[in-house]
Amino acid sequence: MPVISITLVPGYPPQAQARLVSNLALAARSVVPASDAGTTVFVHEVSTYRRDGRILTEGDGAPALPDAGAVVRDFLDAVERRDFDTANQWLAPGFEMVFPGGVVMHTLAELPVWAAGRYQAVRKHYERFEQSWQGEVTVVFCSGTLQGRWLDGRDFEGVRFVDRFELSGGRIRRQEVWNDLAEVKFSSD
Amino acid sequence: MPVISITLVPGYPPQAQARLVSNLALAARSVVPASDAGTTVFVHEVSTYRRDGRILTEGDGAPALPDAGAVVRDFLDAVERRDFDTANQWLAPGFEMVFPGGVVMHTLAELPVWAAGRYQAVRKHYERFEQSWQGEVTVVFCSGTLQGRWLDGRDFEGVRFVDRFELSGGRIRRQEVWNDLAEVKFSSD
Amino acid sequence: MPVISITLVPGYPPQAQARLVSNLALAARSVVPASDAGTTVFVHEVSTYRRDGRILTEGDGAPALPDAGAVVRDFLDAVERRDFDTANQWLAPGFEMVFPGGVVMHTLAELPVWAAGRYQAVRKHYERFEQSWQGEVTVVFCSGTLQGRWLDGRDFEGVRFVDRFELSGGRIRRQEVWNDLAEVKFSSD
Amino acid sequence: MPVISITLVPGYPPQAQARLVSNLALAARSVVPASDAGTTVFVHEVSTYRRDGRILTEGDGAPALPDAGAVVRDFLDAVERRDFDTANQWLAPGFEMVFPGGVVMHTLAELPVWAAGRYQAVRKHYERFEQSWQGEVTVVFCSGTLQGRWLDGRDFEGVRFVDRFELSGGRIRRQEVWNDLAEVKFSSD
Amino acid sequence: MPVISITLVPGYPPQAQARLVSNLALAARSVVPASDAGTTVFVHEVSTYRRDGRILTEGDGAPALPDAGAVVRDFLDAVERRDFDTANQWLAPGFEMVFPGGVVMHTLAELPVWAAGRYQAVRKHYERFEQSWQGEVTVVFCSGTLQGRWLDGRDFEGVRFVDRFELSGGRIRRQEVWNDLAEVKFSSD
Amino acid sequence: MPVISITLVPGYPPQAQARLVSNLALAARSVVPASDAGTTVFVHEVSTYRRDGRILTEGDGAPALPDAGAVVRDFLDAVERRDFDTANQWLAPGFEMVFPGGVVMHTLAELPVWAAGRYQAVRKHYERFEQSWQGEVTVVFCSGTLQGRWLDGRDFEGVRFVDRFELSGGRIRRQEVWNDLAEVKFSSD
Repeated sequence: MPVISITLVPGYPPQAQARLVSNLALAARSVVPASDAGTTVFVHEVSTYRRDGRILTEGDGAPALPDAGAVVRDFLDAVERRDFDTANQWLAPGFEMVFPGGVVMHTLAELPVWAAGRYQAVRKHYERFEQSWQGEVTVVFCSGTLQGRWLDGRDFEGVRFVDRFELSGGRIRRQEVWNDLAEVKFSSD
Repeated sequence: MPVISITLVPGYPPQAQARLVSNLALAARSVVPASDAGTTVFVHEVSTYRRDGRILTEGDGAPALPDAGAVVRDFLDAVERRDFDTANQWLAPGFEMVFPGGVVMHTLAELPVWAAGRYQAVRKHYERFEQSWQGEVTVVFCSGTLQGRWLDGRDFEGVRFVDRFELSGGRIRRQEVWNDLAEVKFSSD
Repeated sequence: MPVISITLVPGYPPQAQARLVSNLALAARSVVPASDAGTTVFVHEVSTYRRDGRILTEGDGAPALPDAGAVVRDFLDAVERRDFDTANQWLAPGFEMVFPGGVVMHTLAELPVWAAGRYQAVRKHYERFEQSWQGEVTVVFCSGTLQGRWLDGRDFEGVRFVDRFELSGGRIRRQEVWNDLAEVKFSSD
Repeated sequence: MPVISITLVPGYPPQAQARLVSNLALAARSVVPASDAGTTVFVHEVSTYRRDGRILTEGDGAPALPDAGAVVRDFLDAVERRDFDTANQWLAPGFEMVFPGGVVMHTLAELPVWAAGRYQAVRKHYERFEQSWQGEVTVVFCSGTLQGRWLDGRDFEGVRFVDRFELSGGRIRRQEVWNDLAEVKFSSD
Repeated sequence: MPVISITLVPGYPPQAQARLVSNLALAARSVVPASDAGTTVFVHEVSTYRRDGRILTEGDGAPALPDAGAVVRDFLDAVERRDFDTANQWLAPGFEMVFPGGVVMHTLAELPVWAAGRYQAVRKHYERFEQSWQGEVTVVFCSGTLQGRWLDGRDFEGVRFVDRFELSGGRIRRQEVWNDLAEVKFSSD
Repeated sequence: MPVISITLVPGYPPQAQARLVSNLALAARSVVPASDAGTTVFVHEVSTYRRDGRILTEGDGAPALPDAGAVVRDFLDAVERRDFDTANQWLAPGFEMVFPGGVVMHTLAELPVWAAGRYQAVRKHYERFEQSWQGEVTVVFCSGTLQGRWLDGRDFEGVRFVDRFELSGGRIRRQEVWNDLAEVKFSSD
C-alpha cells in the first residue's frame, strides 16, 4: 500500500534506478507489512534541483554505488581463482580480514600461506548474499557451505560458513569469516 | 540529494514512521552516495487511498511490523536468562535453530541439553545488530564475542560469534549460529 | 500502473473522497489499460492552498456534489410512488422531460395525465445506472425493462427502456425517455 | 481547486495523455464542484517504476486504449455506408446487437435483412456521444435523431434515438438501440 | 501555470502558511510570467520528516519569522510616537541607522537630538512597504512622503523619502534613510 | 527543512529554472527560518498539463521573464555611457523617471539637460541590487554611492543614493531616484 516517490537529479543509469526502487521497496516492507503487489516505488527525475545553495542538473549527481552483493561476488570469485590483482581492485585502503580463531590479515597474499596450514583445498558454495544498508557502509553477509580436502587427504563438504563484508564507497574494507571447519575437524578427529 | 516521499494511510504510530523514514534513507544511500545531510525522507499521510478496488482510510493499514533488531535482542535476552516463555512468544511456527556442526533443534528446551555437553556457561557480548530487509523476510545478523566457562572449568572470552535470524511477520522462524568455540577449544587443547 | 494523487482542501467527507478516488480510477482506466489492482489513487489534504490570489484552508472548499446515480435513483423511486414533493426537490429550474414520440413536459404533474392515455400501470426494473462525467453536467443513463398493464388490461413485461438524466449542480435539469412500448404494442396488436 | 497528478511510465503518446488529463478533470468535477479554471491535472512521467516486483521503464506501459467515442463514430460511419469490413474491425468476439423490440443479432450482415422489413432508408443525425468510464468497460451513448423513408415511400425525420455501445479493450462487444420509430409509425398510421 | 507544493513539518500557524504560499507565488511569478489565477501553491504537512539524521514531527519546526513588513511598520509607528521601549524590542544587537548625509546612529535616543537641528516636526506618509527576500536577511523598503515643519516654522509636505530596513531573524539590524528634505530646503531657500 | 516542488511545462531554459528554484528558496526562507542547507527546491517538468480546459505540453509555457536585476544593471550601464538606444530597449511604454526634488521626466534625452544644471559628471558605485517580487511587477532597488564633479569643478564621492525601478513584463516602467547630493552640497556650501 505504500507509494514511494524518489526525486533524483537525472543521469543515474537504469540499473542503478532499478536497484534503488527495489531497495526502497524492501526497506518500506521492513516496517509496513505490505505485499510486493501493494508496494509502488518510482523515480522522478527533476530538471533542476537546489539544496544548500547549489543548483544541480542532469549528470551533477554523484555516480551510483555499485551493487554491494555483486562486488562481493566478484571479489570472492577472483580470490577463489587466486586472481589477486582483480580481487585487490575491490579493496579499500586499510583492508582487514579476520578469520576463524581471530586471525587478522591485511593482504590477500597472506591468505594462501595461512590456508596451507589448514587444508589442501577449499571451495565455497553460496546459498545467500544478504545486504544490510547502513548509510556510509553496506554490509554483505554471504553464507553457504564449504567443500574441500583436509591436509591428510580426506574430503569434506557441507561445512557451514558465513562471511561478513563491510563496504564503503563500493570498496571492501573488512572481511570476517566464520565457519564450522574446526567443529567438523574436531568432532571427526 | 535524494528526496523521498512515502505515502501512507494514516494511523501508523510515530515510532514506526520514524523507523520507516530511517530505513528508506539507508536504502537510498545504498545506491546513491548521498550524505545523511543530503537525504530527505518524509511521510505523507493521505486521507483516502484506493488500490485494487479497495478504499482505505485512517487505521485501515496493516499494523506496522516490530523492529526486527529489537525482537532479536528481546529474544536473546530472554534465552540468556532462560525465560523460555518470553522467548517463545517471538518464535514463528516451524521455528528451527542450526548450531555449529549443523546441529538442528526446534525448541528452546533442547538448547540447555545440547549446551551441557559443550560448556558450563556462556554469555554473548553484542557488537552489532545488522538488518537485511528482504520483503517477506527480514534477516538480523547479530555478532560479537562469547564469554564463558568450559566443562573443565577453564574460562574463555573474546570468542567470535555471529547469529543469523530470519524473521517473517515480526516472528523468528530460523536462527543460525556460527562461532569460534571449536576453533578455540581445538587450538587450546 | 498509474498512480494518481489528488490534492484537496480538507473538509470533504469520507464518502465524497471515496467517490472521488473511485471515479478518478475509472477515468484513468478509460485511457490507460491498467487493471484495478494496478491503479492507485489517493487524496492528499493540504493544510493551506492558494490559487488566484485566494487562500483556502479547511472547509473552504465548495460542498461535494451528491452522487448523480443516487440522485436519479431517489428521483425515480419518488416518481414511482407518486411522491412528487420528494421528486421535485431533485429538479433544477427549467426542468424538462422528453418522452417517446418527443412529448415534452415540464412538471411531474403532467406525467400521470399523459400516462393515463397509454397504460394503466408501469414499473421499472433497473439493470444499470451509468454515469457520464462531463464537467458542469453529469449525465446518468438508467436502463432496464418495463413491466405493466395496458389500457385493455393485458400485462406486459420485459419491455426495454433507457432514460437519460442531465444533472447540473446535483439537480436534474432534463430527463429523456426511450422505450420499446410502442414497438411491443404495435407488434402485438 | 483540485490539483491532480498522474504518474505514468513514459511512452504514452501526447493525444493519449491529453485524453487522460481531460478525463481525470471531468471525473474530479463529478464530485468536487470546481470550475474548469480551478481544475489542474498533469502527467508526471517517471523514469523508473516498480510495482509487484516488476521494474518498468520507458515504453513498458500497455498501449493506450483508443478513444471510445471515436471508435463508435468510426463504426457507425462504416455501418452507414455499408462498409462492413471496416466496421467489423471494431467488433469484439461475441459481439451482440439488440434492436427495438429486443431483436438480437450477432453479425452486421443480419442488419440490412432486418431493416428491409422496416424502412427503405435511415440515417442518423448525431447530437451527442457520451462516455461512461467503468473500468474494464467503457460505455458510449450516442443519441440524436433519425431521418429516412418508410417502406411505403413516405419520409420521416427528427425521430429520437439512442444507442448504447459497450467497449472492452477498445472493441465494441455490445450495441443496444432504442428509438421512437414504432411510436412515430404507430401514431402516424 | 506553475503548481508549487511546499512540504512542511506540521505546526506552522495559518497566518504563517498563508504568507508562505503567497510569497512563493510571488517568487515564482518573478520568473514564470503566469497570472495569479494560473499560479497554484499549497502546503503539505508531513507526518514524519527526516533529514540529516534527525526525525522531525509536529511542532519540531523552528517558529515562523514574523512578517518583515509588519515589523517595520510597528517599529516606525513606535518611533513616530516616541515610544522607544516598543521600538527597541524590534531591534537586533548592533543596530545601526544611517541618515541623510551619511549620519550614523546606534540608538533611537540619538534621533530626537539630531532631528532637533533640522526640523520641528516630521511625519511619514507611507505609500509602499516592499520586501526583498534574501535568505538570512529580509530587506524592507518603505517609501512615501514627509510632512512637517521647518525650524523656522514654515510647513513642508510631499517630500519624497525611502527607508531601507535590514532584518535578520525578525529583528531590524540596519535602517537607512534617504529623502529630498535637503533638496527641498536648498531649492526653497 | 521545507521541500519545495515546482511543476512546470517543459521548455524553460536552465538559467530560468535556476533562478526559479533560487527565488523560491529565498521566498520560503522569508517565512520559515530554515538554513540554506535545509531548504530543498526542485523543478518537475510534466509531460502534459491541463488547466482551464487547455492542454499544454513542451514549449507551451510563456517565455521566462528576464532577471530584473540584470535588466536594471544593463539599463544603468547603457545610461551611464549615454547609449540611449540600448537603454530605451529596456523601457516600457509610459516610462517615467522621478528625480530628487520630485522632478519628473519621460525620456532619457531629458536627463543630460537636467543634469547639466547640477553637476559636470556623475558615476554610480553599486553596492546592492535588491529585488522585491510582487507578481505583475518586480521592483529592483539599487543602492550605493555617487562620485562626480560639481559645476564649480570640485569633486565629490561617497554620496549615498538609492534607485527604485519598477519592472513589468521584463521592462522598466518607472525609475525613482533618491540621493544625498543636495544634502552634501548644502552642508558643504
